[in-house]
This record gives sequence, structure tokens and C-alpha cells, in this order.
Amino acid sequence: MLPRHAGALARVSQYPTRAPTILRTFPRALNYQVRASSSVNGRPAAVTRRSTLPVGFFRASHVNRSSFLRSISSKPLPVPKSSLARLAYRTAAVLGTFVAVSTGLVVAFFIYDASTYKEDGHTEDVPVSELALNPRRGGPKNLPIADYFVDDDDSEETKAIKHKPKLVILGTGWGSVALLKQLNPGDYHVTVISPSNHFLFTPMLPSATVGTLELRSLVEPVRRIVRRVHGHFLKAMAEDVEFSEKLIEVSTVNTKGEKQHFYVPYDKLVVGVGSVTNPHGVKGLENCHFLKDISDARLIRNAVVRNLEDACLPTTSDEERRRLLSFVISGGGPTGVEFAAELFDMLNEDMCKFFPKILRNEISVHVIQSRSHILNTYDQALSEYAEKRFAHDQVDVQTNSRVKEVFPDKIQYTQKDENGKFVMREIPHGFCLWSTGVAQTDFCKKLASKLDGQNNKHALETDTHLRLSGSPLGDVYAIGDCSTVQNNVSDNIVNFLRTTAWEKGKDPESLHISYSDWRGVAKRVKQRFPQAADHLRRLDKLFAEYDKDKSGTLDFGELRELLMQIDTKLTSLPATAQRAHQQGQYLGRKFNKIAQAAPGMQLNEVDYGDIDDAVYKAFEYHHLGSLAYIGNAAIFDINGYGLSGGLLAVYLWRSIYFAQSVSFRTRCLLAMDWSKRALFGRGTCLSYPLFIVFPAYLLALLCLTCFTNDL
Amino acid sequence: MLPRHAGALARVSQYPTRAPTILRTFPRALNYQVRASSSVNGRPAAVTRRSTLPVGFFRASHVNRSSFLRSISSKPLPVPKSSLARLAYRTAAVLGTFVAVSTGLVVAFFIYDASTYKEDGHTEDVPVSELALNPRRGGPKNLPIADYFVDDDDSEETKAIKHKPKLVILGTGWGSVALLKQLNPGDYHVTVISPSNHFLFTPMLPSATVGTLELRSLVEPVRRIVRRVHGHFLKAMAEDVEFSEKLIEVSTVNTKGEKQHFYVPYDKLVVGVGSVTNPHGVKGLENCHFLKDISDARLIRNAVVRNLEDACLPTTSDEERRRLLSFVISGGGPTGVEFAAELFDMLNEDMCKFFPKILRNEISVHVIQSRSHILNTYDQALSEYAEKRFAHDQVDVQTNSRVKEVFPDKIQYTQKDENGKFVMREIPHGFCLWSTGVAQTDFCKKLASKLDGQNNKHALETDTHLRLSGSPLGDVYAIGDCSTVQNNVSDNIVNFLRTTAWEKGKDPESLHISYSDWRGVAKRVKQRFPQAADHLRRLDKLFAEYDKDKSGTLDFGELRELLMQIDTKLTSLPATAQRAHQQGQYLGRKFNKIAQAAPGMQLNEVDYGDIDDAVYKAFEYHHLGSLAYIGNAAIFDINGYGLSGGLLAVYLWRSIYFAQSVSFRTRCLLAMDWSKRALFGRGTCLSYPLFIVFPAYLLALLCLTCFTNDL
Repeated sequence: MLPRHAGALARVSQYPTRAPTILRTFPRALNYQVRASSSVNGRPAAVTRRSTLPVGFFRASHVNRSSFLRSISSKPLPVPKSSLARLAYRTAAVLGTFVAVSTGLVVAFFIYDASTYKEDGHTEDVPVSELALNPRRGGPKNLPIADYFVDDDDSEETKAIKHKPKLVILGTGWGSVALLKQLNPGDYHVTVISPSNHFLFTPMLPSATVGTLELRSLVEPVRRIVRRVHGHFLKAMAEDVEFSEKLIEVSTVNTKGEKQHFYVPYDKLVVGVGSVTNPHGVKGLENCHFLKDISDARLIRNAVVRNLEDACLPTTSDEERRRLLSFVISGGGPTGVEFAAELFDMLNEDMCKFFPKILRNEISVHVIQSRSHILNTYDQALSEYAEKRFAHDQVDVQTNSRVKEVFPDKIQYTQKDENGKFVMREIPHGFCLWSTGVAQTDFCKKLASKLDGQNNKHALETDTHLRLSGSPLGDVYAIGDCSTVQNNVSDNIVNFLRTTAWEKGKDPESLHISYSDWRGVAKRVKQRFPQAADHLRRLDKLFAEYDKDKSGTLDFGELRELLMQIDTKLTSLPATAQRAHQQGQYLGRKFNKIAQAAPGMQLNEVDYGDIDDAVYKAFEYHHLGSLAYIGNAAIFDINGYGLSGGLLAVYLWRSIYFAQSVSFRTRCLLAMDWSKRALFGRGTCLSYPLFIVFPAYLLALLCLTCFTNDL
Repeated sequence: MLPRHAGALARVSQYPTRAPTILRTFPRALNYQVRASSSVNGRPAAVTRRSTLPVGFFRASHVNRSSFLRSISSKPLPVPKSSLARLAYRTAAVLGTFVAVSTGLVVAFFIYDASTYKEDGHTEDVPVSELALNPRRGGPKNLPIADYFVDDDDSEETKAIKHKPKLVILGTGWGSVALLKQLNPGDYHVTVISPSNHFLFTPMLPSATVGTLELRSLVEPVRRIVRRVHGHFLKAMAEDVEFSEKLIEVSTVNTKGEKQHFYVPYDKLVVGVGSVTNPHGVKGLENCHFLKDISDARLIRNAVVRNLEDACLPTTSDEERRRLLSFVISGGGPTGVEFAAELFDMLNEDMCKFFPKILRNEISVHVIQSRSHILNTYDQALSEYAEKRFAHDQVDVQTNSRVKEVFPDKIQYTQKDENGKFVMREIPHGFCLWSTGVAQTDFCKKLASKLDGQNNKHALETDTHLRLSGSPLGDVYAIGDCSTVQNNVSDNIVNFLRTTAWEKGKDPESLHISYSDWRGVAKRVKQRFPQAADHLRRLDKLFAEYDKDKSGTLDFGELRELLMQIDTKLTSLPATAQRAHQQGQYLGRKFNKIAQAAPGMQLNEVDYGDIDDAVYKAFEYHHLGSLAYIGNAAIFDINGYGLSGGLLAVYLWRSIYFAQSVSFRTRCLLAMDWSKRALFGRGTCLSYPLFIVFPAYLLALLCLTCFTNDL
């Protein structure tokens, strides 16, 4: 460069008027020359300073463009080499930057990673209470009573809450975890008891069965959740509750197979033990798979692959092959439908690539539903959408069908034909999933039998404060699938009627509502009690049925009778994750309020009365909507407004679950899993998009950096 | 901006000499003015064109720096606002770029993801041979013979190889997979038969037991590997081989639990069925865990967590807690040592955060080893390093100990004390892993009993072409753990002696070698036969023992006797993944050569003689080294050169396995798993480095872009 500078300088001296233009050409090398020439020309430094006002890299663009214009105006001129050189330089700079940043990040990651390996594994003295190691015995059965735990003195925080009121939570499902996440640390001595040491993200379980998701991504260890409130976890099974002595009897099976019982004392007990599969009195369920826990998902996955492998063997007859590839799902609720959809996706998208083509031709997926539609708790339009989708995907749906018996190789069911007659049918199957709703656990049955005012056969009854009916006030609560709230529908019906009357500007008693009014009322009832939707399917039929005087309107009496009829059918809130979650959150908030109010009440020596009612409102269920994934499409039912669609809805479906996911960790794992599915399929197929995405990323970065430079 | 331009223009007209400087200030808006003034001044356009020669954004830097120098020279001047504005602008530009690129990539990913969902699940007609659906019966037992498969006509490629020589591979381990990956597609009609439909990356299995890796990351479906050669896979178990009729008898158990047998014909058969755990005649192994397959890893993980949970219960006594937390590993080979290390890591790094502190204090890990050192096949320095490491980590190592019996709650073993006496000892345990080497499968025993020349009790003997000794030449091969090569050590010994003699410049017969020569010979023997290393541990002792005339040197006879003695101890090549992999690769290459040579041989009507020997060299094992992971450290033994160290060695260890990993898919999954471990621990702990890394990345990008702009 130096000789050219010299030449430029020479030219400067030869043609002083051209100096500024040339200086722009070699600005850095001639820096001092600018000042020299400036001073020679007698210009003040301020002028040069003003030149720094605009953002520096505007200029590059200008020069580029003006030279381009000029080269166009005085053609034919060759394309200047400088543009190419500049591009090459910038490319190198951007690539260099990228490599440097990436290297830095990788090094940073490795340094971080290295820091996660702990070198020091030496022990320290741990104070443990003698009573924790050798618990006293007592209670009606003279069992050990776990007043203290071995980790009560582990840290300052646990020491501080050692003598706080004992809050014991049974179960580690949606309700219990929501409660734990809501609870303020330090207010209660929390103990969680459950045979399962993890929280399972149940709505995603059907996806996990076929390998779309890793099983571990759906699981959050309870100890991690419990740690936030400095609580304790016992992997044990609740057997009974001694309400008079405030003791829970729990049992464990030790490694030698012996069952051991002991008591855990409580001040407040929350029962969230969930439910078991409902057998509906059907025989042969030992030939079925279930979908309740993570181990079920694993068994299902193995069974499906096993059937496919068996179907390839030369000794397998045509008939046997068709049987092995016949997958029957008994139950057309969300779990059954989602599983059918995921199973179909896997068989259709992934398996056909690696298994003989004949298998793809002989695969059949059947859904057996007792009601007239699948997804019957959803809006009618949505369940019809789902049915259409299944029809398109060649998933066979058998409605109005009740399973009679499940054999190892076939399933028998009765189907109501068009004339209302029941016809016995059967489908040979190689795999049967039983997902027909839930029933009460033995523990809940035992509790219900001990208490007055427990009349529901399906769940523990609670008041609107979620307190177990019949138990001492403020001691025992029940949430989630194992419970049902006596939800005063009659009060609500009066409200509905009043509202309708006010809207009409009339006295409720003299109200006559038309069919369009009736639809408004029905919509409101559905919104408040989503479980009523099923009973409000055929609005015209209901209207005609209760309009006894055929006046075309319903009077107050007729409407009340209609709604009361529905009320009797409304046994419980839906047994969903959503409900359990809301109940857990509610209890968490209430317990926080009670803990806040406790010092004041102690001061005023108030230890009686309805504290729950005094500090917090009653539980109200807000139905946020239902959603389901059905074979590369998803449907949403949000406050009665339905939405259904293809892949965009699937992404929305994922987003909702992603947001609901219990922790940052599980969210990351879910995102990784979905990426893996896209990149590698469900564990069986492979594509190489990374090789496209990564250079595309580099290129995009390069282009955009150049663009911002030239702006 | 317009008023300022107007002002500038006004100034241009007022002070024409300053025009170029001001034009630099507002270059874009005044673009046409430059040309106007240029033409007015009568300057040629060429001068301006030259100004585009240097790379555009040099200039920005220049202006910046010169104005900075000026501001220093004429202080006190305020810091120009322009720098801040520019920085803000650039920040916005870079952030905007980043967001735009990221958005684009996310959109691209979603579009790609959407494309992976197949809409069309409709069936097509698939041609299937009648003989595939109804196979003929025959053979000594009159069983169905699978001459054709249902997927023989699935594609053009499979049709083309339908009548090629039938290559049947038994097993889906390292050897079989290496063979499949080496084989040229289209040369053989390949059938893989195995009870396991996945390839397992066995060296990583100990890591998977404790959750460092996902089990699925270690597994590659065999169907994916087989697809490359358009082969077939049967999930079945090999039972017997009818050598005379070239039929393999295989069995499957159908879903009803019935066992079905059929024949698969072969032209070439490769036996790679692996081995089973060696019970060494010890009683009570039903109380032990094993580590052979992926399901074992899952059982171990559950057992470890179960013990920890049980140890927290209030009914667990001190003694019982110590027993539950006592983990015994029987066997000090690589598997046992790596498992002990991983287990210790998990207990030390992750578990202690979430379990009561008392558990951490009472955890003990024991390794029981029959030899005098753990990792006894490694270099002595390395096994000592491993022992030191374990001593530091408080992992208890019991050497010279033979297990007598395993009880559900304790393990009994005899230990040789310092006086050489055997003392009976016992350790209470809550978990016992049995990893003491391998034994022959029943299938291999049956084959060996049918053939002449099979005298080895531990493995099938092959010649150096890996052909099963006693079977028809070129029909049956055996590779991997189930086989052993008659490796002509005597020839090699003569070579060793000759080499040593040549080095000395002497006749081998009159050779006298000193102790230092002896060490050289020993090193060479170790290199060639790594399994001899154990017998060459105490070089001084051996030397003294065989130097019968106490001359201080060994003569030819003494040395030969010494090496022959070692030869008798050398029963087989090491039962490692490395050996199986090399054997598989070797066979793959040879089969390719044979297929290439086949047309020529048919032309010349050559169908006799030793074709293997004619087309390819004999198998030679190249020991590439051994490596092991031992508690946040790793050791390498590469051709006798040992290397041991902390985290850097761990990263090297990972890199080697990463590179060896069987597919792009498993590599990605491994990388994801290691990242997960760093970010979230082994499924139980959590940190938030992403929140640090991501802004750091943005910041680095910002800085480096600014830097390249100003360059």
C-alpha cells in the first residue's frame, strides 16, 4: 500500500483541489495528512469533526451506490473488483466472528460443565434427632409415629420450620404439585407421601407411548418440588386416617418384601391420591394395557413394536398378521383419542419406512366408544371434526358400543344398531388399551366409609372450601380426581334464571323464554359446568321435551324442571388435570392466608369457628377449555368456542402444554424432544436437516450483517 | 433531515471549496449533488470510481479515530453524542438482525417440521410372493423354510438382490453391525436374526444406568442399519445349525406364548451371538443385578433410587439404612469400575442435594476384585491411578477376593491376606452388581459339540480367516465375544526372538538377552497381545524365575520357555467391542472382495479351493488401546502408553466414544444428553446457565460485529 500512498500524496501535491476526494480513498493511512492539509488550507478542525455526526457506516453505502450509478452512466465499464474484495473481506470477518463467538461459547460451556463435577465428596457431621432415628410408638395400632424426620436438622431453613403446623399431602399428582408450588416456604412443616416419587405430566402421556417424547421429559422428581418449601418426602402408601388422633397410617414394602406400617401425624391433611382405572365390570382386563403411569407407557411401546416384529416373521399367517396389527382402543375420551392418533401417526410416518410394506396395508386402529360420539365432553362440532379426521386417516370408530369381554386375541362388544337393538360384535386384536374413565381407590373408599355425609360412590365429597365432608373442620381436605365438590347447582340455576329474567326486564316467575333464549341459557350453563355439555347436546330435542304445553316457549316451571333434571345428572367436576391444578392452587393460596392470619388469631385467642371461610373465598372452578391432539391436527374447546385445525393447531396445542409444563427443566426437555422427532423421527427414521439449517444460519447471518453495514 | 440538507446545500453554494467535506457528511441524500459538483468542477468520473477500491468500512474506523485524536488534541471538548447514538443504532441493528435471523430459522424449522408430518396414509398394492406367505416345509425336522420374505418385492433394490447369495448374520452386536456397515449394498441377500432389534452402544451402558445418558441415545434400531444393504431382519433366536443342509433353525415365541421353530437357509452364515454372564459357579446370583442389556440398566436405576427412598423412611433402622446404602460391585474390570465410578458420581453430585444429608454420610461403594488390582488388563500405572482415584473418592476396593455366595442382604467372599491365607469376609449390601466376565451361550455350546476341532470351552474356535473350525470351508464364520481366533502365538514368538536377535546382530540360537532387552521383548508382546499384559506384570520376578542359571541374562531356551508359558495362558483375544468391531469390518471387506471375484470365478468355473485366502488376507487384530472412566477422571492405555487425568481426560474419553458412535443420530443424542447432564444434572438437579449463556452470546455477537465494523 505504501507506494500507492506515496503516489496519492504526489497527486495531492500536484492537484491540490483533488486532495479531499483522494483522502477519502485512503483515509486511514493518510490520517495525519488530512490534518496537515486542513491546516494548510486554513480550514478549522471543527468542520472535520462535524463529519463524525452521522452514523459511520452510512457512508460505505453511499460510496458503493454512487460509484455504481456512475459505472452505469459511463458504460461499458467493468464491474469493479472492489465489491468482490469487500464481500470476501466481510465474509471472512463474519465467519471469523462466528467462529470466535462459537469457540468462546463452547469453551464457556465446557468450563461451566467442568464446574458441575464436584471433586469433594467428603462427609460432614450431620445432626439427627434421636426421635427421628427411633420413633415413639402409639396410636390405635401401637405403630411407630414419625414425629420427626432424619432431615429436620439438615439446614437452617428446615430447623426453623421444625415446629410449624404439620401439613401432610398425600399424592404427587397435579393437585399436590400445584399446592406445593403455591405454598410460601417457611409457613408449614410439609410432608409429601406417595408411592410415586415423581410428578407425571399426564396430558402428554399418549405422546410418550409411541416415542414422540422421552418418558423422562414428562417427569419431574417430587423431591425437587418439595425442596422449595423445605419439605420432606416419604415414598409410602397411605392406608388409613385416624381422624380423632390426627394420624395417617402409611405402609411401605421393604427390599425383603415385608410390609411395614407406621403413623405420620398431621395438623392439616390434603388427600390428593387420584383414582384408579374403572373396570366397568368387564372381564378379561388382564389382556389390556392401561395408560396411567410412566411404566404403562413403556409397556405399550414395547408391545406395539413386538407386534410389528412378530408380523414380519415367516411363520406368521395372514390372519395372525392382521390380528397382530389390529390395535383396539376401548374408550373415546381424550386419552383414548390422543393415543389412537399418536399410534396412527407412528405407524404411518415412521414404521412404514423400516418394516415390510405389507404391514402398512394390514394395520388397523379401532376406537370403541360407549357414547354416540368420541370426545363427547367437547363441543359437538369439535367431536365431529375429530371423527372426520379419523375417517380420513382410516381410524375405525365404533360408537354406541359397550365392551363385554376382552380375550387375549379378540374383544367382544355390543353395539346399538339403527333400530336401537343391541348386536354383539367382535374385533380380533393384537393390542388393546383400556381407557374408559376412572374409579375410586381403596384408600378413598375406606375414608368414605368412616365418615358421615359421604354418599358419593365415585369420589370423596367436599364442601366448597374443599374440606372433606364429615371430617373435623379445617383438618382434612381433598383435591383432584379423588374428590368431588358439592357445587350447589341449585343456587346457580336460580342465578341463571334471574339473569335471564333481568335481561328480559321481567319477573322470573312470569318469564317465558323462547328457543333462542334457551340456547343462551344453555350456553351459560355449559360454560359454568362443562360437564353438563354432554346433557345439553340436543338443545332442540330438550326444548321440545320440556315444552309440555307446546307453546313454543318455556315458562319458569318448565325451565326449572329442565335444569333440575340436568343438575341430577351433574355428579362431579370433570376429572381433569386442569381441575386438580386449580384446586391445588386454591388450597395453596388459602394455606398461605391462614398462616398469615395465625399470629393474629393466636393473639386474640381465636381457635374456633370457620377459619377457612374467614380468610378466603370458596373454591370456584374456571373451565379454561379442553384440547386434544388428533392425528396431525388438534382441537380446542375454549369456553364453548371451538377451534380445530391442522398443523397450526398442533403447534398451538404444543405451546399450551409447553407453557403449562411444570418446570424450566421439563420445558427444555420437551423442546429437545420435539426437535428430535422432527430431526430423527420417533426413534426409527432419520433425515439430515441440520446440514441444511446450519449453513443457512451462517448465510443468513452473513447477509444480514452486510445489510446492516450498508444501511 | 431535509432542512439540514438544504442548509448544507446552501453552504455548498456559499463555500464551494468545502463542498467535498460536507458531502461526506450527508453522502446519501446528496448523491446526485456529488455528480453535479463533479461535473461542474470538470473532474472525470474515474477519480470518484477509484474511491471505491478500498473496503468500505475501513473508512468509518478512520473517521472515528481521527475525530477522537482531534478531540484529544483540542480538549476540553465534550464526548461527542454521535458515538453513543452510533452504538445505540448498531446495538439495535445487531439485535434486529439477531431477532430476524432467529425468527427466520424458527420459521424454517417449523416449516421443515411440518413437512415431516405425512398426510397421506393410503394404502397401495404390495406384491408379495406366495412362497413368502406360505413357506415350504423341509429339513431334518420338517419345519417351514423361509426361502422368501414378505418384503422381497418391496422395492427395485430388494427385487434385484432376491436371488443373490444368502448372507445370514446372527446377532446385532458390535461385530454384526460393523459387518453391515462395511458391506456393499446389492451383493448379498442379507438377513439379520437376533432376539434384540437394536444395536446397543455397550461401552456407555454404565453411564446410562445412573441417568447421565438417556437409554435411547445408546440404541440404534437394527432395521435402520439393515436398510442400507436392503436386507431383512427377523426378531428370533438361533437354536441350531444344520451344516449339511445349510439351514439355521430359529425360534420365536408368539404373543400367545407358544414357541415356533422354522428354518432360514444360508449360503454364508456369520455367528455373532455374543456371550452370557459368567456365573463362575457362585450361588445366589438371583440376588444380583447384571449389566448386559438396556433393560438391565433400567432395573439398576430403579433399584438404586428405591434404596435411597427406603433409607429415608422413619421405620428404617440405622443398620438397615447402612445396608441399603451399601452398593457392592463384584468384578473389577472396565464395566464394574466404570459403573462404580458413575454410581459414586451420581450419589455424590446429584442425590445429596435432594435427599437427607445423613444418606450421604452412610453411602458406601465396594468393588470386589479377584485379581491383585482392578483394571488388571490395563497398564499397571493406570490401574494404580484408578485405585488411587477410588481411594480418594472413598470407593472401597477389595482385591484378591473371590465371591463365594450372594445373599439377599450380604455378600460372602474369601480374601487372601498378607500371609497368603484365605480369610472369609462379608459385606452387607442393598445392591449387588455381577460383572465378572463372560461365558458361552447354549447355542454356541451346541455348535461346538457338533463340530470336530472345537476344543475351547469358552468360545467357538475359528481359523485366522474367522471361519468356524470344523465347518465346511467358507460357509460359516464366527466373530465377536462368542469366538476366539487360533492366533498362532508360536509363530509370533519366533518373530519376536528373531527381531531381538537381528537388533543384537546375532544368531537367535546363541542369543543372551539382559533384563533391559527382556523389557523390550515384553513390551512388544504386550502390544501384539494385549491380553498377555496381565501375565507380564512382574517382569523382574518372571526374569528371575526363568533365569535358571542365575547368569543375569536369558538364553534362547530360557526365553522360549518363558514365552511358551505365556502362550499357554493366552486363550483368546480380549472380549471387547473393539475386537468384535474389527472382526466385523474384516468380514465385510472380505465379503465385498468375494462378491467382486465371484463373476470371474464363475467364468473360469472355479468353485473349489480356499477362496477366502485367495481374495483377502488373514485377520489381524490391532489393539488400539483401552479406556475407562473412573469418577470424574479417565484413563487410556494406548499401545502400552498410559494416560490418565481429570476432566480433560474425561472430555477426551467422551470424544472417542462420540466419534465411535454408530450414527449421526446417536451422536446428536449423546451431545444433547451431555448438555442435559451439565444443565440439569442426572435427572434430579437444576441450574440456570442458559440464562447466562444466551445473553452472553448476544453480547459477544454485538461486540464482535461492532469490532468488525470499525476494523
